[in-house]
Parts: sequence; C-alpha cells; structure tokens
Amino acid sequence: MSYFDVASSAPLHPVARQALQASLDEGWADPARLYREGRRARLLLDAAREAAAEAVGCRPDELSFTPSGTVAVHSGIAGALAGRRRVGRHLVVSGVEHSSVLHSAASHEAAGGTVTEVGVDRAGAVSPEAYTAALRPDTALACLQSANHEVGTEQPTADVASACRAAGVPLLVDAAQSLPWGRVDGQWSLLAASAHKWGGPAGVGLLVVRKGVRFAAQGPADERESGRAPGFENIPAVVAAAASLRAVQAEAAEEGARLRELTERIRARVPGLVPDVEVVGDPVRRLPHLVTFSCLYVDGETVLHELDRAGFSVSSGSSCTSSTLTPSHVLKAMGVLSEGNVRVSLPRGTQEAEVERFLEVLPGVVAGVREQLGAPVAAAPRTESAARVVDALGKRCPLPVIELAKVIGDVPVGGTVTVLADDEAARLDIPAWCEMRGQEYVGEEPADQGSAYVVRRSS
Amino acid sequence: MSYFDVASSAPLHPVARQALQASLDEGWADPARLYREGRRARLLLDAAREAAAEAVGCRPDELSFTPSGTVAVHSGIAGALAGRRRVGRHLVVSGVEHSSVLHSAASHEAAGGTVTEVGVDRAGAVSPEAYTAALRPDTALACLQSANHEVGTEQPTADVASACRAAGVPLLVDAAQSLPWGRVDGQWSLLAASAHKWGGPAGVGLLVVRKGVRFAAQGPADERESGRAPGFENIPAVVAAAASLRAVQAEAAEEGARLRELTERIRARVPGLVPDVEVVGDPVRRLPHLVTFSCLYVDGETVLHELDRAGFSVSSGSSCTSSTLTPSHVLKAMGVLSEGNVRVSLPRGTQEAEVERFLEVLPGVVAGVREQLGAPVAAAPRTESAARVVDALGKRCPLPVIELAKVIGDVPVGGTVTVLADDEAARLDIPAWCEMRGQEYVGEEPADQGSAYVVRRSS
Repeated sequence: MSYFDVASSAPLHPVARQALQASLDEGWADPARLYREGRRARLLLDAAREAAAEAVGCRPDELSFTPSGTVAVHSGIAGALAGRRRVGRHLVVSGVEHSSVLHSAASHEAAGGTVTEVGVDRAGAVSPEAYTAALRPDTALACLQSANHEVGTEQPTADVASACRAAGVPLLVDAAQSLPWGRVDGQWSLLAASAHKWGGPAGVGLLVVRKGVRFAAQGPADERESGRAPGFENIPAVVAAAASLRAVQAEAAEEGARLRELTERIRARVPGLVPDVEVVGDPVRRLPHLVTFSCLYVDGETVLHELDRAGFSVSSGSSCTSSTLTPSHVLKAMGVLSEGNVRVSLPRGTQEAEVERFLEVLPGVVAGVREQLGAPVAAAPRTESAARVVDALGKRCPLPVIELAKVIGDVPVGGTVTVLADDEAARLDIPAWCEMRGQEYVGEEPADQGSAYVVRRSS
Repeated sequence: MSYFDVASSAPLHPVARQALQASLDEGWADPARLYREGRRARLLLDAAREAAAEAVGCRPDELSFTPSGTVAVHSGIAGALAGRRRVGRHLVVSGVEHSSVLHSAASHEAAGGTVTEVGVDRAGAVSPEAYTAALRPDTALACLQSANHEVGTEQPTADVASACRAAGVPLLVDAAQSLPWGRVDGQWSLLAASAHKWGGPAGVGLLVVRKGVRFAAQGPADERESGRAPGFENIPAVVAAAASLRAVQAEAAEEGARLRELTERIRARVPGLVPDVEVVGDPVRRLPHLVTFSCLYVDGETVLHELDRAGFSVSSGSSCTSSTLTPSHVLKAMGVLSEGNVRVSLPRGTQEAEVERFLEVLPGVVAGVREQLGAPVAAAPRTESAARVVDALGKRCPLPVIELAKVIGDVPVGGTVTVLADDEAARLDIPAWCEMRGQEYVGEEPADQGSAYVVRRSS
C-alpha cells in the first residue's frame, strides 16, 4: 500500500502525535483564565506560537492560529481587503491559486469588488512582469501561492513581493504546499498555511499578518488570537502543529533531496513507459515531492480507481473526478492536457521500491483503461476524405479526444476534422491533443448543440 | 487540587481521549478522496455525524461540524439572517446570551440590521410572554440559550420555540452549556454547541440547521460540511467529540443528580458561612453542576487568586477579572450584585470531599480579602448628619460599595448618602447592595466626574 497524495493531506508526523498526546492533559483549559490550569494552557499556547513563528520567520505577535488553512486564507484576504478599503477594492490573484483563494476572490467580486486573474505560462508559473502589470492604484491586495498544489511549480514570490512592496500593495502568500520545505523568501505581507499538509493535525491553520499591514478582521468580534480567529483555542493541536512544522523543516533539506530524486525518476521515465503522456509543471523550479502527468485517451477517475486497486493512492485534477465535471482550473490556466491527469505527491519516508513498483504498475493500468474505452492503438490505412465531422455529443472526457484521434488519419494532410462535443473538458483537451500530436487546432465554432472543434491535419 | 470551572472548559473525557487516539491513524486523509485512506476517513466522519445527530436529536444531514461553538453561533446566525433577508433584518436575542451571540448581534446591527434584547428576571430567565412580544413581522431570527453559562438558569426554550414557530420565526438555541445533560426540548430550528464544554476536544462545534429552515451560508464558498463550515475536516477530533457526547449524555441522569446535590449544598450553605453573600440564578430550574454567588466588599480577581492558592479553580463574572473592567453583562441584565462574583461549575466525578473542603476554605478567603480592603465588619455608632457625600472617584470595585457601607450608619433613617464614583461596576453594585441591605436606592445623577449614586437609609 503506497499513499502518494500528501499534497491533499499528510499522515500524522510522529512528532505531532507525541506533542498532541503530551498536551492533551495540559492544554484543555481556557488560556484566558488566571488559575493554574489556565496558566499552563497559556504557556503551551505561547510556546507553540513562538515555535511556529520561528519556522515561518515572523514575530510571534504577527502569527494567529486559525481552524484551518482555508479559514486562514478566507480571513486573511477579507481582513486585508477591509483594512485597505479606502485605497480601493481591486484584488489581484494568479489563475492557479488554491480554490480557497479563488472562492474568496469570487466572494469579493459578488460584494462589488474587482478581481484581476494573472495568467501563467505552460509550466504553471506567473511572470513577475505580468503580475506587476496587474497592480493598479486602487489595488488593495495581491495574492500568490508559493508553489502550486496541482503541478508543484514554484512561483516567483520574492520578485512579486518586491514589486508589490514598490507599488505599496500588500502581498498575501498561500504557503500551504511549500512551508514544510522551508520559509517563504521575500518581503511578503501576509501568509497562510495549513498544518495537515505537513503532518500536523487537522484543525490548525496559520495566518501571519506583518506589523504595519492594515488589517480589519471581518465578522463578529472575538477576543482570541488577536481578534483574527474567533473561537476557543485548540491548544493540543496547535502544539502538535508547531512541533511537527519544526521537525519537518529540520528534515527538509535531506528528505527533499531524496524525494526530488524519486519524483525526477517519475518525470523522466513515465513518458517512455506510457505512450501519449504529457508531464506537466516546471521540471526544475518545483516542489521536491510532487509530479503530475496527463494521459491521453483515459479518464482520471478510472485510472485512480485502478491505481487504488493496485495499492496506490493518488489524486487527479482531471475533469472526470470532480463533482462539477469541469477540468481543473490549474491545468486549464496552463493550457495543458487535463485528460487522464494524475498527481503523485510523495510523503516523507517514501521508499525507492514503492516508486519503482508504481512505475511497473502504471503502464498496464493506463493500457487497460485505454482498451476498455476503445482508444486508438496505431493508425491503420483508411479511406481519405478532405473533411470529416465526428459527432461526440453526449460523450464524456476522454471520448471526444479518442474519437478525434481515431479519424485524423482518415483525412489527408491539410484536411480537417470537426468534433461536435458538449463536454466541458473537450474545450481544453482537443487543443492540448493538437499540441501534443503536432496537429493544427483551427478553433471552436458555435453549433446547434455543444461546440464544433476544428482540427487541421498537419502531418 | 480541584478544578471547578467546567463551564469554561472541561478536561478531556476518557472516551474522547480513546476515540481521538484510535482515529489519528484512520482519520487524517481527505474524506472527499476516493482511494482507501479517503474512504476510511469518510466512514469515520459519517459515523461521527450519525452519533452526534442521535445525541442532539436531529437528522445527520442537518448537522455540520464547525471548528468551535463560537463559529457555530457566528455562522448559524449569519446564515439564518441572510436566508430570511427578504422577511426583514430584525434579530431577537435575550440579554444574557453568550458573548458569541451578542457579538453576532452587534455585527448585524453594524451592518444595518436591528436587534431587540429581551430582558430577564432576577433569576436570569426570560419570560416566554416577553420574548414573544419582541417578535415582529420583520423578525428574521430569534436566539435563546438553553441555559445560562454564568448562573446556570435554564431558559424556557420549548415555550419560546413554540411561540416562534407560531410566528413563523426560526429559533436558534445556543445549547453549549446544556447539551451534555440532554437534548434540547421543543421545536427549535437551529442549534449550536461546543465539544470542549462536555469533555470533547477543542476544535469542534456543532451547527444544526433543521430541514426547511432558510439558510444562506456567508463568506467564501467551500464544499465541505454542506457548505456551512469551510476548511478541511478535523476527523479525529470530530470522532472524539461525538463519542464523548454520547458518553456524557449516557451518564447524565446519574451524574447530574449527584452534582445537583453538591451544588445545592453550596447554594444552601454559603449564605450561612460567608456574611453578605447573594446566591444568584434560579434555585430550581438550573443546570445541575453550576452555582454562582456574589460577595459584597471583595473583588472577584483577588478572591479567585486566593482560591487558586488554596487549590480551587473557579471563575468570576465580576468586573474586576475582565480586561474591559465592565461587569458581566449577565449579572447586569439580572440586576444582581456583580461584586466578588464566584462561579463554581463542577466537572463530572467531583467528589463530595472536594466540595466540603471548598466550603471550609471559602469563608476565610473572603474574610481575608475583606480585611485587606478595609471592608466594614460591624456597624459602630457614629455621629449622624442628614446627608453625606462619599468621594470614591478613581476607586475600583469593590471600594465604592465598601465606602458606602462604612458611612450608611452615619446618617439617620431617612437621610441620604451620595457616592461619587467613576467605576462602571458601581452602577450595578450600589443598587444591588441596597436591595441586599434593605436600603432605598434613590437613583443616579450626573456629576462633574463620574456619577453620583444617591442612597436613602431605610433602616
């Protein structure tokens, strides 16, 4: 059994478990009380805050513990926007942020604010120049993740932070994926993170607001955590979160190098082992433990199911696994294939043998799913006609692309195939297939039902 | 060492500890994932929801786990108000609600809503008639605690729920103090509670929204917990919370009877052991484990400190312990003495011997504090004049009342004492002293500095 989805949630780190159990007896009382049980709880809370602040690289009084990373992001964005309400109501985010950031942005927009989403390159990174160009005189806040949660690409947060500082705009960094690997460089203003991503317990997020940043906490008043996180403090969990963050950061250099070698193996070998695969995300500027690839002619959900049966727990940003049936906004923003998407994120301690077994199992799993779906194996000579129309209406990802691949050989070079499809993923995956196959994507046209995607055979 | 402040926070129940530890290994993965670790987490979460719903008396799909009781109250009130925005923006609360409810009300008012606070009697209870009279055609929501957290008085929630239902207004019950003792009777619409109050871990609240209640969750969207509690689920804590709630409810009848006998002992014996004491809260319709009394001529903080030194951890609603230096809004709403306030709330398993030792220690502690403060011990004959003015400006609770008590014997029956004071607690404690001493409180007059409180000697 190999759990390869630590980017979703990590098993509890031994240090977290130990700290949690040790503080269950000491940390249950109200730290605002003056009697001995309260004073003991307060000491634990203060020590945890100092440890977490040290790990983040901030002052203890700049750091609040929130009930989750999501709440840290929601509260951080809402408080920073409200604190700079007089400056304006413009918010800048990247197009590949975590949903908690994008949901905050949508909520801000619904309340009358404006939002600019900065695009990314095919590797998933923003350019500091494009990001800077989005800043305006009425920009109240900018948000940028330190590293992407779906493809592992690191963002140029230090450069963007400098540009924001020069423009007088506070930058909130969502450090959920990178904090276990070290502090976030640069002069950011706010930072959010989540303990269960590094092996701390669930129920703990971090919100850091640097001194001098205008901040007005939203929602009903509450005196706890500097007024930034209402509700009774969860001290045993907070103690466990802080202790495990220090522990994982102390192991980060060594463990990061080891896992980077393992993910590099997947990056390098998957394209040779599985035909029609695109490895996505930056090959160099990336998280050490995370690698993502997409496979033509399969749906992510079935691949995940088959990998689970083979003993591997991985994740997918593929349209087919989400309840909304829309492809991952990250892969969409990158303009890469979303079909058959697989994200592998290795927990600390992952063994080389597990990765080797994964590489052994994967080709058979993908081939099996392709066979079930009737995907094209090799092009056979067929009667050519200058233009073909394929009706894939009502067919779900990856079927429209499979249909396209089956008939492209039927038209002469220079001829076109028009795919009629109403599955949302087709809009992303047909152009991505063209890019991978060296075919020309002509464009999308309206149709009576769904859309018509026109592809010209180039080779 | 006796911890007598379970109304603030309870030590972890053995069942909670066991459930927490057992689920740390099974409950860390994302329950939204389809692989085995995710499915295991989902099973635990579903089972915890069913157990908690059974304990509350609702359907599992009506119950969301929130990060705290405070967040359950904030989210419940905000969502219910928004869901009935078309009806109006009027909110009804009692004057003795927990600060989380009153802070939500203040936030609603700041956003343009209107709030009616229903008063309580000297025992701390609302009357169903007065509560009903506050309902209006534009009332969007009504809130009432099941029992008061400072004095233990039970509220007539079933009657108020019926009246609200008749008026078509949803009632939110803050059940934080009473849920460990059993389900809340009556046809309420929403309910909030907090696990650390019953010996569950911190980090878990319950928000119940009955089917058919209009509810629009506020803040950025999030798919977890029916969209009512954003952030990654804290499954081990939720499992521990649900298991311990069932455990404490199963013990409630027996343990409640035992603790009621012990608190009754305190209620009955303290007035005989300590002179000038007022026991507050309803003597019958009350929580079994909680008793509150106020002592003239002492400040709560010093009494708490001395009791802590003697091995007892208790709480106080006295002005002197809070950072704002204003008396407890609960005692204020009841119109009872706030001076030298002591709340005793017994945890499960409290032994008779501990309570007996408390009753042994208390008289000496109070007498010692009174002696330090120079409180009157017995009235000595003094020169009488028809009116006296006492300058207590700049003096903090309980000094203004001590000064008043010292000179009341100096004026003849029918004569007056005017106390000049600028301590906020005097406004509450001087009338309360008059009530206790059978003197006439004439009223408050403006003064150059602070206020002038006029008292007429009646006996």
